[in-house]
Amino acid sequence: MAPAARRRTRAVLAGPLGIGGEYPVSVQTMTKTDTRDLEGTVAQLLCLQARGADLVRLAVPDEQAARMLSAIRRRVNIPLAADIHFDYRLALQALDAGVDKLRLNPGNIGSADRVREVARAAGARGVPIRVGVNAGSLEKRLRAGGVRAAALVESALAQARLLEAAGFTAIVVAVKAADVPLLLEAYRQVAAATDYPLHLGVTEAGTVTTGSVRSAVGIGALLAEGIGDTIRVSLSAPPEEEVRVGKTILSTLGLGPPRPLVVACPTCGRSEFDLQPVVQAVEERLEGVNASLRVAVMGCVVNGPGEAREADIGLAGGGGVALVFRGGKVVRRLRPEELLEGFLAELDDLLAYPGSPASRRST
Amino acid sequence: MAPAARRRTRAVLAGPLGIGGEYPVSVQTMTKTDTRDLEGTVAQLLCLQARGADLVRLAVPDEQAARMLSAIRRRVNIPLAADIHFDYRLALQALDAGVDKLRLNPGNIGSADRVREVARAAGARGVPIRVGVNAGSLEKRLRAGGVRAAALVESALAQARLLEAAGFTAIVVAVKAADVPLLLEAYRQVAAATDYPLHLGVTEAGTVTTGSVRSAVGIGALLAEGIGDTIRVSLSAPPEEEVRVGKTILSTLGLGPPRPLVVACPTCGRSEFDLQPVVQAVEERLEGVNASLRVAVMGCVVNGPGEAREADIGLAGGGGVALVFRGGKVVRRLRPEELLEGFLAELDDLLAYPGSPASRRST
Repeated sequence: MAPAARRRTRAVLAGPLGIGGEYPVSVQTMTKTDTRDLEGTVAQLLCLQARGADLVRLAVPDEQAARMLSAIRRRVNIPLAADIHFDYRLALQALDAGVDKLRLNPGNIGSADRVREVARAAGARGVPIRVGVNAGSLEKRLRAGGVRAAALVESALAQARLLEAAGFTAIVVAVKAADVPLLLEAYRQVAAATDYPLHLGVTEAGTVTTGSVRSAVGIGALLAEGIGDTIRVSLSAPPEEEVRVGKTILSTLGLGPPRPLVVACPTCGRSEFDLQPVVQAVEERLEGVNASLRVAVMGCVVNGPGEAREADIGLAGGGGVALVFRGGKVVRRLRPEELLEGFLAELDDLLAYPGSPASRRST
Repeated sequence: MAPAARRRTRAVLAGPLGIGGEYPVSVQTMTKTDTRDLEGTVAQLLCLQARGADLVRLAVPDEQAARMLSAIRRRVNIPLAADIHFDYRLALQALDAGVDKLRLNPGNIGSADRVREVARAAGARGVPIRVGVNAGSLEKRLRAGGVRAAALVESALAQARLLEAAGFTAIVVAVKAADVPLLLEAYRQVAAATDYPLHLGVTEAGTVTTGSVRSAVGIGALLAEGIGDTIRVSLSAPPEEEVRVGKTILSTLGLGPPRPLVVACPTCGRSEFDLQPVVQAVEERLEGVNASLRVAVMGCVVNGPGEAREADIGLAGGGGVALVFRGGKVVRRLRPEELLEGFLAELDDLLAYPGSPASRRST
């Protein structure tokens, strides 16, 4: 069972990363270091790669930052995108430095000659360009009477046309907004109007507490409609959090690499066990695991046994004892005081011997 | 600009709370106390009411819990739902105690006579009944070969028919699942098959970190399609968190009561200020505020001034100074060291004098 069929798009390549077409939806983020700080930026990029980011964007506000890109490029192999505004020479320098993608609006780098120069250089290196707007940076003539979805779409597609006029079509489009209803409408319209791949994001979504929920609603609703080829969650938080939330959005919809699903009892007045520490420990244990695995941690006799039996490994409490299921069969009984340790041991056993139908510890 | 037109449904009343029809989408949660613990349960209910829950469900696993409902009912006025399984007498006791809604599947309380007795008692008191299944408790004959959306829908509607056969139609339907793609498909099907109002929820979604994102994707995607009349976020976390996430999902889509929108810069290599403490403080300051208000906290010259000007109150950093905008006009300039205090003072001024076009502190 999958979300709506994915919209058909052209594909582009950002280094080894495919975007659009049949390529899986990817997760982006952006460094929050000063790009001129080589060590800090490289450390953050390595961390983001380890956390599963597929591509990372860096702000390139000036020449010093642009000059640093070559050194950064030599130290990391994760795909990089350079975020450029106003100055076309920064784009050329970034391309020379070996970035895999540009984020740039041709409309704000000056003359058609400059646009052609950037398009030619990007084309020669096989580097795609992401164009697009967000409500915060929309041109004045388009904001009259408040920002409308059609204006976002018009503005983004006008940027794409400037590149097309320069003979360049390796384009990704975004029409970001902070207002999610506006965002949904704008992406639905742009999805109908073009077959370029789309970059999704709720801009300036807030802290991790609020922003992760707002991003999940906006990005998730579009992906569930089959719209979107690469995503970025924008949080006022460390970029690792953006990657974590982005990957969770994808795995929730069965997109992205296979990930364990933890089905966890919310606990209620029916619960006979304190399950929150178990759920927390299980989620932590599975953090780096990329496998399709269903784990159920359930506290009562209403939904517990059903969910636990359905899972690859499940825990169901009730009547003073908790049962551990593997592949639908009870393999162990745990007393309340051995719950956490016993279940984690069983989970580790399953991770070590994925084919094993039942615990080798069972009696 | 709104999400897709909301699906047309019948409406029911749970005490003062309307569900379906033209009533706003409501936010539910469930107590995590033992219902037999009067003081603990009442304290949690009062807290949840203060946090904005519209209705709270309580587990009623036995007669002791059912007997406690009258005492609880006398101490709180938030709408209450009783969660009943297996024993029809508990449903009758809960109705006698004055609960506003039942969550009960007639198929698991025994004979048609018992169903009629509960339906008659609920009807006499004007109390609606929520029926439905989730993948974890689906009957065996329907789970063959894994749970399918059509089986969830068939099972839920069969429960509704048992009540209809007893002459009862004040019904709310749920087809919950932990798998979000399965959930989306099941709700789309049930929305097409019936005009009863729908209760949405991703079951057993996980800890607040993961579960809030998974719930936001599933519930948000359905609401964006116009499906859903009342929601519950199920987390392995305190119920206040469920309410917070539920309210954020609604406000993200422009549903529910008006809420402030904080547009917050994710910060990048372009940021000249440390904005995370400001965003955090602003979100906390606005926690209890129910007003349509747009606040922008932005760090750079790219998207900053546009977002700040568009907002009711905005902060945009750049060039060593941060500008405070109100109603599109600069009303104050703040140095980095006075950023947090200065902006919060300006925000408080706006909250105290909402009509005021500009700071009375401005010079």
